Amino acid sequence: MKNDVNRQFRLKNRPVGRIKDSDFDYVETPIPELADGEALVRNLYLSLDPTNRIWMSDMDQYLPPVAIGEIMRGGGIGQVVASKSPHHKVGDIVNGLVGWQDYLHVKPDAMFPLSTLPKDLPIPLTTMMAACGMTGLTAYFGLLELGKPKAGDTVVVSAAAGAVGSVVGQIAKIKGCRTVGIAGGAEKCRLIKEEFGFDEAVDYKAADWREQLERATPNGIDVNFENVGGEIMEAIMPRMNLYGRMPLCGMISGYNATEPVKADFNPILMRRIGIQGFIVLDFAAKYGEGAAQLAQWVAEGKLKSKETIVDGLEKAATAVNMLFDGTNVGKLIVKIADPATV
Amino acid sequence: MKNDVNRQFRLKNRPVGRIKDSDFDYVETPIPELADGEALVRNLYLSLDPTNRIWMSDMDQYLPPVAIGEIMRGGGIGQVVASKSPHHKVGDIVNGLVGWQDYLHVKPDAMFPLSTLPKDLPIPLTTMMAACGMTGLTAYFGLLELGKPKAGDTVVVSAAAGAVGSVVGQIAKIKGCRTVGIAGGAEKCRLIKEEFGFDEAVDYKAADWREQLERATPNGIDVNFENVGGEIMEAIMPRMNLYGRMPLCGMISGYNATEPVKADFNPILMRRIGIQGFIVLDFAAKYGEGAAQLAQWVAEGKLKSKETIVDGLEKAATAVNMLFDGTNVGKLIVKIADPATV
Repeated sequence: MKNDVNRQFRLKNRPVGRIKDSDFDYVETPIPELADGEALVRNLYLSLDPTNRIWMSDMDQYLPPVAIGEIMRGGGIGQVVASKSPHHKVGDIVNGLVGWQDYLHVKPDAMFPLSTLPKDLPIPLTTMMAACGMTGLTAYFGLLELGKPKAGDTVVVSAAAGAVGSVVGQIAKIKGCRTVGIAGGAEKCRLIKEEFGFDEAVDYKAADWREQLERATPNGIDVNFENVGGEIMEAIMPRMNLYGRMPLCGMISGYNATEPVKADFNPILMRRIGIQGFIVLDFAAKYGEGAAQLAQWVAEGKLKSKETIVDGLEKAATAVNMLFDGTNVGKLIVKIADPATV
Repeated sequence: MKNDVNRQFRLKNRPVGRIKDSDFDYVETPIPELADGEALVRNLYLSLDPTNRIWMSDMDQYLPPVAIGEIMRGGGIGQVVASKSPHHKVGDIVNGLVGWQDYLHVKPDAMFPLSTLPKDLPIPLTTMMAACGMTGLTAYFGLLELGKPKAGDTVVVSAAAGAVGSVVGQIAKIKGCRTVGIAGGAEKCRLIKEEFGFDEAVDYKAADWREQLERATPNGIDVNFENVGGEIMEAIMPRMNLYGRMPLCGMISGYNATEPVKADFNPILMRRIGIQGFIVLDFAAKYGEGAAQLAQWVAEGKLKSKETIVDGLEKAATAVNMLFDGTNVGKLIVKIADPATV
């Protein structure tokens, strides 16, 4: 083991606006002795997601908020380094809620058990967190099950250079749709067209972004995969076509805000739009099917996975802000350690 | 024929706030000579609906707004009094968009053809406009197809003493749900419990209506059949259960307003709520099935139809305001004339 202590970041207070290092207590705890049935996991990669900001808050949410004093919740990938558990072998690569810490003390009664990844994966571990992980599955089920895109439909995705948005656009393209991505800045707009194959890009940082959206959707919008909320969602809503579908995946623009995200309901009624809030957990029963399809598309070169990797657990807290500033591309990941060869 | 002129109300200007008589031009036109293929219908009953207020405005809507100078659009029931059309026989009772006038000049190329009601109906004509008409079908399809109520679910209906709401509550009850109606005033609250069988009534005119709603929905809300929007919808939203369904039928509280009806989207995301805007036309292909079921429930005494009848075409304009003031109970109908015995 590289360290003889377990570095942990515990929530100290609920952030107001941007996340600061001082919102967390940095604690060094000893690495635990294992009791029967327990295992020790060395965390390798931590997934940073917009939902982390929700967990830090006490807003109405889909899991209990992280309690003050609790280790910050976070998904990630780790490696079993010691085990007295029948479920975990030393060397196994595991996947789940590992928390913002170097080591996860796995107890038999854990609320969220870790899953073990297959040996000899043909794709990098970081892709297993991105296009082929929860992120990819979020895009896959949200778009296909709720957005129900048909060939020729215009599909709009906000945060299109982000982890979920970039996969949504690529799947919509695979399904024969016209894809319009909304992203911040000329460089990201170039990237989503060249790298992720979007037909049109709308730069929400440009003064004329509303006109860009209008020009990019001359036939209206059939599916809006909503990631950001706020004024972008408000501009999309009146362009929705009759019977348009709107999977509501996130409203990142509001997570740092103190006021609720409100939007005009009138087009929902007049255009008979269907809106469905969801999280990937809603589709847990179908993860296998989705993951297999995503991996196949990656193998065939039809689906590209892009990751932004930040080095060092100590950077996790402030790195979450990148998601809100839009300074990451694709999946935002913190590298904690390299896997050991077992 | 009772009159030798056709009284018509034509939209003069788009109402601001409440509807005034002066928003319409009263015109007396001669009763037309019929050309081949045409028919003349004497209008008997005019249906007044919240959507009339939408048609008078130029807001984004599901049909073209009524043009300035055009006869006000309105659904209703009439009787064929002269015919050179193969589709209409003198004496037939017909149903459709008859307009705010005494006589409808039916031309062969009418955009919305009239349908003929069966002879010897076992229920009054006004019930054919209420529980067994478009109103009942709106309740039927919105609740069953979109709300998908299961036995034991808590179903909340706003405007519960109104034409649609009263039928929604009764169908939900037939399906074994716990029904909570929101209505204005103690008298209406009594009525919806005693007459329409709601389990609980919330009086939105009472100072403590929010507490009443809370007490009436101790297990949260599974289905919200939304008719009113505004602060009632805002109070319902955070009480929606996981995977709650919300058929969006109307937002009457906003139709007289100049600002859009906005609402907090956060619970939609966090509770994974499904919202679907609809109008009854979306289910036109299934009208037969729905109407047969509604008529059967009426015949069995399981479904009660209630109508408020205003006498006189000249009262139509200001009577629409009753829907917004909440002074009608059940279906609001203007009686224009009695059917003739043929």
